[in-house]
Amino acid sequence: MQYIDFDKTKAFKTLAGLALAGKQFDYAAAFAGDLAAKRIQNAIAPMAGGLSYSYAAKPVDETVLAALQAVADEQELIAKYKALLGGETMNTGENRKVLHHLLRGQLGGDVIFEGKNLGEFYKQELARFSQFADDVHAGKIAGTTGKPFTHVVQIGIGGSDLGPRALYLALEQWAAVNGKKKLDAKFISNVDPDDASAVIASVPLERAVFVLVSKSGTTQETLANELFVKEKLKAAGLDPSKHIVAMTSETSPLAHNPAYLDSFYMDDFIGGRYSSTSGVGGVILSLAFGRDVFKQLLEGAHEADSLALEPDILKNASLLDALIGVWERNFLGFPYTAVLPYSQALSRFPAHLQQLDMESNGKRVNRNGEQVRYATGPVVFGEPGTNGQHSFYQLLHQGTDIVPLQFIGFIESQRADDVVVDGSGSQTKLKANLAAQIVAFAKGKHDANPNKEFTGKRPSSLIFGKQLAPRALGALLAHFENKVMFQGFVWNLNSFDQEGVQLGKALTKKALAGNSGDAALDAYSRLLGI
Amino acid sequence: MQYIDFDKTKAFKTLAGLALAGKQFDYAAAFAGDLAAKRIQNAIAPMAGGLSYSYAAKPVDETVLAALQAVADEQELIAKYKALLGGETMNTGENRKVLHHLLRGQLGGDVIFEGKNLGEFYKQELARFSQFADDVHAGKIAGTTGKPFTHVVQIGIGGSDLGPRALYLALEQWAAVNGKKKLDAKFISNVDPDDASAVIASVPLERAVFVLVSKSGTTQETLANELFVKEKLKAAGLDPSKHIVAMTSETSPLAHNPAYLDSFYMDDFIGGRYSSTSGVGGVILSLAFGRDVFKQLLEGAHEADSLALEPDILKNASLLDALIGVWERNFLGFPYTAVLPYSQALSRFPAHLQQLDMESNGKRVNRNGEQVRYATGPVVFGEPGTNGQHSFYQLLHQGTDIVPLQFIGFIESQRADDVVVDGSGSQTKLKANLAAQIVAFAKGKHDANPNKEFTGKRPSSLIFGKQLAPRALGALLAHFENKVMFQGFVWNLNSFDQEGVQLGKALTKKALAGNSGDAALDAYSRLLGI
Repeated sequence: MQYIDFDKTKAFKTLAGLALAGKQFDYAAAFAGDLAAKRIQNAIAPMAGGLSYSYAAKPVDETVLAALQAVADEQELIAKYKALLGGETMNTGENRKVLHHLLRGQLGGDVIFEGKNLGEFYKQELARFSQFADDVHAGKIAGTTGKPFTHVVQIGIGGSDLGPRALYLALEQWAAVNGKKKLDAKFISNVDPDDASAVIASVPLERAVFVLVSKSGTTQETLANELFVKEKLKAAGLDPSKHIVAMTSETSPLAHNPAYLDSFYMDDFIGGRYSSTSGVGGVILSLAFGRDVFKQLLEGAHEADSLALEPDILKNASLLDALIGVWERNFLGFPYTAVLPYSQALSRFPAHLQQLDMESNGKRVNRNGEQVRYATGPVVFGEPGTNGQHSFYQLLHQGTDIVPLQFIGFIESQRADDVVVDGSGSQTKLKANLAAQIVAFAKGKHDANPNKEFTGKRPSSLIFGKQLAPRALGALLAHFENKVMFQGFVWNLNSFDQEGVQLGKALTKKALAGNSGDAALDAYSRLLGI
Repeated sequence: MQYIDFDKTKAFKTLAGLALAGKQFDYAAAFAGDLAAKRIQNAIAPMAGGLSYSYAAKPVDETVLAALQAVADEQELIAKYKALLGGETMNTGENRKVLHHLLRGQLGGDVIFEGKNLGEFYKQELARFSQFADDVHAGKIAGTTGKPFTHVVQIGIGGSDLGPRALYLALEQWAAVNGKKKLDAKFISNVDPDDASAVIASVPLERAVFVLVSKSGTTQETLANELFVKEKLKAAGLDPSKHIVAMTSETSPLAHNPAYLDSFYMDDFIGGRYSSTSGVGGVILSLAFGRDVFKQLLEGAHEADSLALEPDILKNASLLDALIGVWERNFLGFPYTAVLPYSQALSRFPAHLQQLDMESNGKRVNRNGEQVRYATGPVVFGEPGTNGQHSFYQLLHQGTDIVPLQFIGFIESQRADDVVVDGSGSQTKLKANLAAQIVAFAKGKHDANPNKEFTGKRPSSLIFGKQLAPRALGALLAHFENKVMFQGFVWNLNSFDQEGVQLGKALTKKALAGNSGDAALDAYSRLLGI
């Protein structure tokens, strides 16, 4: 297996040769008459969890798809994925394996590290926190006063916050109407004291269990917020050790610590932004919705991971999505992409994908630490539709630049509670808006008045399915994790470290120590009254 | 006064001549030793509400600032602002005045339309909904059962949602600890039925007053959600006409309608994304926090509007911010900008700015409807710090592209509830992180290992002040409104219409009617089970 920079491949040159034609892709022809129905019917790749990936509104034809297949083959994307599954050191910068897929199920051989079967370890921790959730629900585990817990509060930041929060919100309403809602969940993330203070004030402390999440056990924000919570618990006459569980690595200071009600473990092979399917997401989701819901989420993710092994890009949605993204980024020149879920439940899913993508592939050096000569990860942003339509879509339709779009939509709502106005329900209106936007972005509309003209030619893809339920959500999550992984392989990056966060940490320590010796830092510290 | 395209100005050519030097701006030199302290001390423009705008970490020197002043002068930015204040038809596409400044106070002559003094009209409506809020708080106005209202729910989308929601969240905690919190507020925006259904299920309907916001009274999402709410109220045995107030224009079907408890009015001269300081934001904020809090917010905004009249760009923060943005967009080539508030209370403020900016200036035609030959509004996104540091900052520090940054921070927290860990409080840590990030982005850090190297040269500005309180928030809001307005003037755009939303609306109607005759639309409708 070879790791080479993308611009050194034959496929790169082929795609560069296709770029001009790609920029002139004729959406109107592709979406005209019988061709449209045929294209939209055919340009669908199956996904896990009952989802599908539609790429009919992407600027690709058979020639481009063949060239993208050649990228997949030449950069050995599936082989690299298999190596990752098999436990190779894919996080080269930190000399670590990358094993979040193993949290959901085993697709390669056993992964053994220092004599330990890691698949078994992950299963054991899953079983342990599932049992913990059962015991909380049964009232066998309770707080200081013996009253059952009604609230769970996660203390964590970055990957310990965005993914779990997005998943909780994605299932909260589904759970409420399906009899699965067991505990209310809240999240404390920011070191801004107003965040912890407000959340604590909104929760009945006597009935609250806190999940303290830090792999290293040294995250500044999380430790500050832990102490914040402990002081409030004590002030309320409660024993913190009966209200806090730790989710950490076995080598962290939080591990095997009697200060906590219980502790669950991960290891260095689960990156923060890839940790939602570990106990980082699993403890709070199991407490909130029960172990079965989390299990279904894992099953959906595992199914997606299996599908991602398929070498044919037309049968592998995460691979295809990755390659089309590369086409748009490196050859069509689009520096951003918008994630637009037509589902209020996915309100924070774009924020999770923003971390997943930008922290993984926002890099200018390859996996060997050499500077690359091509663009890598794009800026990712997004808000739910139809809200976004009344906000930033103006620029998407008529701005001077083109932003590729990733739509997500579902046939059924989660709460099955709807109202008919003007002959249609709201869920139908939601879907009609979604269909209309895809077509409007692609085809545009001519008007003699340039202010009312829509140039179209704005690419989008659509992930769709029956309903946003746990299995579909797990598949959706893993789809994007695998997409980002494949893009990292194409660009020859290490998608699994984050050296870009280090300098800020070091300077923060200096600023806190005062009189840092850095004149600029001291001057800004003075402005901010530090 | 002349309206000419930006690339036809002399100043454009001057700036184009400076672009190469601008791209090579020496941040390290600017931030080295004594120069750093001096630059950071001097590069501050005063703002309203006790805020300041620091631009020391922007790639500008005296030559560039002089060229930006020349843009302001040549494009007659202050004269155009004065024309707007005076009631000229600045929304050329829709043949409308643009009068949101007049909501906060009068800075020009009386604005008369069809014999009506509009300043007086806005004042009268402000007085009316202020009194309504007083009466609700006093229990003089109550719902069907006579019990006082405890919850207020806004029904609105786009500008009727994002701005009011961002402002509510910005003051919720401040109000809670300052004895100003009167009603809990919630928001229903999306046509996704799960949004309305979930919010309604979370509110005691008997104690809830709804604010129905639609200027035209024809917004599809809002009308669907209104009926949703009405049916739930009826099902709970409540009389909708005792629980809903309308915020609309006097010509809308919602106006003077006995179906509502009361109605408050705006007019066509208040654009949706500029309506937060009208009753669109004012009714719910006055109900939630009392009339005085909203008044202070208006005062802060009015003070900002006054400052924006200053012709010297170094004394006019919104003008300077606008021009530096133009410099970065058109000459340094950055297609996006990130808004990064170090304040959890501003968690949704970036989403509001995203609409404000992208819907106003995401245009490819000038105010006369002719295509422009330069880039206009950038993509805007953002999340609060320190959360973002653990998420997408990796790309900001080490990605292949440069994203200009807008930091916001405050010396004091809102809740004055803090914890000391390792010798510093959380608020101090928050500020230390902020100072550290600005310096890290600007200066970077050399390392022999390219993976640990930070190239720096990543521009940022900082808005800072003592505390996020109503007056500061009003100033902050108006700062960005005025910034966007000035950029629109530079680019010769009409920043006040939004033709880009129309095509989607038309195609949605077709999709809902079924068998639209558009093969692509029909095919997507089938995929989504419409």
